[in-house]
Amino acid sequence: MKKLSVIAWNENVHEQVNKVVKEIYPGGIHNAIAEGLRNQDGDGLLEVSTATLQEPEHGLTAERLEDTDVLFWWGHRAHNEVVDAIVDRVQERVLQGMGLVVLHSGHFSKIFKRLMGTSCGLKWREAGERERLWVTNPGHPIVRGLGDCIELEHTEMYGEPFGIPVPDEQVFISWFEGGEVFRSGCCWHRGNGKIFYFRPGHETYPIYHNGQIHQILYNAALWAAPQGAWSGVMNAPNVPVEHAREKIRRKGESLHAEGEEGFK
Amino acid sequence: MKKLSVIAWNENVHEQVNKVVKEIYPGGIHNAIAEGLRNQDGDGLLEVSTATLQEPEHGLTAERLEDTDVLFWWGHRAHNEVVDAIVDRVQERVLQGMGLVVLHSGHFSKIFKRLMGTSCGLKWREAGERERLWVTNPGHPIVRGLGDCIELEHTEMYGEPFGIPVPDEQVFISWFEGGEVFRSGCCWHRGNGKIFYFRPGHETYPIYHNGQIHQILYNAALWAAPQGAWSGVMNAPNVPVEHAREKIRRKGESLHAEGEEGFK
Amino acid sequence: MKKLSVIAWNENVHEQVNKVVKEIYPGGIHNAIAEGLRNQDGDGLLEVSTATLQEPEHGLTAERLEDTDVLFWWGHRAHNEVVDAIVDRVQERVLQGMGLVVLHSGHFSKIFKRLMGTSCGLKWREAGERERLWVTNPGHPIVRGLGDCIELEHTEMYGEPFGIPVPDEQVFISWFEGGEVFRSGCCWHRGNGKIFYFRPGHETYPIYHNGQIHQILYNAALWAAPQGAWSGVMNAPNVPVEHAREKIRRKGESLHAEGEEGFK
Amino acid sequence: MKKLSVIAWNENVHEQVNKVVKEIYPGGIHNAIAEGLRNQDGDGLLEVSTATLQEPEHGLTAERLEDTDVLFWWGHRAHNEVVDAIVDRVQERVLQGMGLVVLHSGHFSKIFKRLMGTSCGLKWREAGERERLWVTNPGHPIVRGLGDCIELEHTEMYGEPFGIPVPDEQVFISWFEGGEVFRSGCCWHRGNGKIFYFRPGHETYPIYHNGQIHQILYNAALWAAPQGAWSGVMNAPNVPVEHAREKIRRKGESLHAEGEEGFK
Repeated sequence: MKKLSVIAWNENVHEQVNKVVKEIYPGGIHNAIAEGLRNQDGDGLLEVSTATLQEPEHGLTAERLEDTDVLFWWGHRAHNEVVDAIVDRVQERVLQGMGLVVLHSGHFSKIFKRLMGTSCGLKWREAGERERLWVTNPGHPIVRGLGDCIELEHTEMYGEPFGIPVPDEQVFISWFEGGEVFRSGCCWHRGNGKIFYFRPGHETYPIYHNGQIHQILYNAALWAAPQGAWSGVMNAPNVPVEHAREKIRRKGESLHAEGEEGFK
Repeated sequence: MKKLSVIAWNENVHEQVNKVVKEIYPGGIHNAIAEGLRNQDGDGLLEVSTATLQEPEHGLTAERLEDTDVLFWWGHRAHNEVVDAIVDRVQERVLQGMGLVVLHSGHFSKIFKRLMGTSCGLKWREAGERERLWVTNPGHPIVRGLGDCIELEHTEMYGEPFGIPVPDEQVFISWFEGGEVFRSGCCWHRGNGKIFYFRPGHETYPIYHNGQIHQILYNAALWAAPQGAWSGVMNAPNVPVEHAREKIRRKGESLHAEGEEGFK
Repeated sequence: MKKLSVIAWNENVHEQVNKVVKEIYPGGIHNAIAEGLRNQDGDGLLEVSTATLQEPEHGLTAERLEDTDVLFWWGHRAHNEVVDAIVDRVQERVLQGMGLVVLHSGHFSKIFKRLMGTSCGLKWREAGERERLWVTNPGHPIVRGLGDCIELEHTEMYGEPFGIPVPDEQVFISWFEGGEVFRSGCCWHRGNGKIFYFRPGHETYPIYHNGQIHQILYNAALWAAPQGAWSGVMNAPNVPVEHAREKIRRKGESLHAEGEEGFK
Repeated sequence: MKKLSVIAWNENVHEQVNKVVKEIYPGGIHNAIAEGLRNQDGDGLLEVSTATLQEPEHGLTAERLEDTDVLFWWGHRAHNEVVDAIVDRVQERVLQGMGLVVLHSGHFSKIFKRLMGTSCGLKWREAGERERLWVTNPGHPIVRGLGDCIELEHTEMYGEPFGIPVPDEQVFISWFEGGEVFRSGCCWHRGNGKIFYFRPGHETYPIYHNGQIHQILYNAALWAAPQGAWSGVMNAPNVPVEHAREKIRRKGESLHAEGEEGFK
């Protein structure tokens, strides 16, 4: 069986400029995620690679994306440096069927805002407080191997209201020591693609060295993997009268000349 | 009671350049819609005005939008002439609570694609064929006053697959003489705003002079009217440690300096 | 304008047998709810009455339900004493368009389980702990007049997983002192009716004497009010060949004789 | 890899009493479905068996259901002969994670109405007319191997409004020769289980001998297969104060004695 092709993408900025982050993730968050996925992959189902903002085309060429099954997205400080043409390309691939896992501060990434259509805003606080992620659907493939919750001793708080469309499936809701709650694990279908937003991950805490987080990311990769392809998802084809399934004849006026493209 | 402030917006291009369209809509589609809404408004609930692409800021200044309860959107040929800053503005108002009714070819408008996050594509054919819109939820406020379906003798066909997120409520599904079907009346909630997509409306047929269509548009205006406001929907406020609802103390490292803005 | 007809229904059992509950709600929880609604109703929009399990037909005759716009449901100990024929009747009215507000332990009522189709289970603990209900959609009509959260000093805890279909709209999520979270305010559409589940309300705490709770219940009554009616929602009508909208002739074999009823 | 255990269930009544049906399905519809699934199963992924209403416990003992991954449901004339205890059992297994595929007239089966919570009603006509099922999400696993639609020359018509909760995913919408439309392929998640409703199948037409129908049923079996288990889905566990994740002490009055069961 062909392995699932997975990319861990990272803007890779804080690791270069912030001493604390550099110490926690000397190889960059993308490599911590990639290693976490590989560690979980005893069955050899994944082929994991990385890509970063600084590479040509952010490491996401059309050819490479064409072969990608699931894309993990980490961004925070440099959302606006991601060029729109690459966002277009990722969006098209998601709508065709590629899985997308958006992490933590990626809630404000261009690609997530593009796919949600909403503000994607939230409350936040950096106090290193305790977070407990409750499983709201035991037996969901993304929580395989977990108990009824997981605890993280030091996290950044994200609080409601979270400006998202109602999730198709709710997987986690978080409790915070300081008194807030947050929809921390949310699933959507868009086009033929699956999207998972997963909250934990602040870069000044070693979240991506945590085995339970690795387990969830691995489960999410398998869940988000394409089960089919809608290759022409961006098309808007004309159906000529003579190809109508039921026999009809043209009646009345037209705006378009025969065979003319529609407006986009 | 304050009347609902409604704008019928139109790119107003085909009416200027296409003889057939000009004859059917000599005052422009925006005025046909506005008159239809006024004709239905025996109870005096609406204050209807129009706006077009050609006006400064497309007639949609921040001040005017601030006071707008429901916006009707007609566009077809000039989607790309709508400037992005106005799209941003309309999106923000929808997320705050303004209603949006997107008509026919508006499926490919920037604002609809922005709010949906999907391709918004479909199949199409101009053959003046018969369309029958079936009510899928009798008693829904948008179908008030209708029977179990409405028929339009000459319409452009739109066919599935329609590249949209699953609607929150399905109101109409269309049957076409040539053999296709289409989700013709779809409702979504985004942020605090309501969105209704309504399919009929090709500009070479007198769809917007039809009383049943007027009835539906009027119902849609009432349905989409705001029932509250989320004025800060685009914000992402920091909650300082000392304002946490439960007493906590700062633990561990931070990425942000005290009081610093988050990244967007 | 005709007032909205609202019933506060209560099984009214604990108030009779439990000293603590009797002291807190000497007139029964139904009257506390009814008074709370009336106190909020400065605009005179509601006509509020009560009904209890002990009345003939539980106080919910067909005639009375026919005239009811919104039904509040409190039950806990006597869910199984509600007769199925009344549950059928309430379900039909909800599908036609009547609003239903299910309170606290009503999550295990027959009518709620009937409309959800799921387990409706949850975790629970009676420790009088603090609960904070966060608003997840500011500007939603149900949170009108509230800030970003409300706090209840002493409540029973309900914890996830809550065995419900994904809500159409999420209005509140709760934080509990003991470390759990819960989807405390959830909206669904079923048929033409609106359903709101609202968590707070344990009978050994004076929850229904709290003004903020009254505000929410009042808002919920207005939100859940019918905006139309689907009177034949339980029908499955045959469409005779000669009444088909498109001219067809009968082809092939039939299971049913002409005019025979379908199987149910 | 363990094969998926699939049961094709049939009330098996019309095949005994109706000459036309007996000729088309001499082995019963359950065997036609089972053979169709086996024919598609070149990869040997399924273990298919059958069960009928007439068997003890309708062939659905607790032990057998415990081992079942996907259940196909055919019923029409004898919905009310299915005993409620078996419906409870099937519902519990679906909520735990078992897949359920409900066919045609099964829209009025007890198990489907139970899981939907709505009327499940529709319009119908037996005229042997043409039906065309349009794919609304190309690339969905259930439409694998199909083109943009499938055509059935002779079918019973089902028309909107269909009394269901809005589907989580729409896979097919039907066009009928007589002028109606219908949501013919609908997906829902309930608890941890997946449900697929598939419209075609009238017993006086050889629908279940059609290869494209076999393909869809096979795809549906793979789609609906469990990806995890929520074994305690019907539980409502008490969490004792001393087991709270955050240290709390009991405050205020309780309704339940220590260790007492909750009310159901």
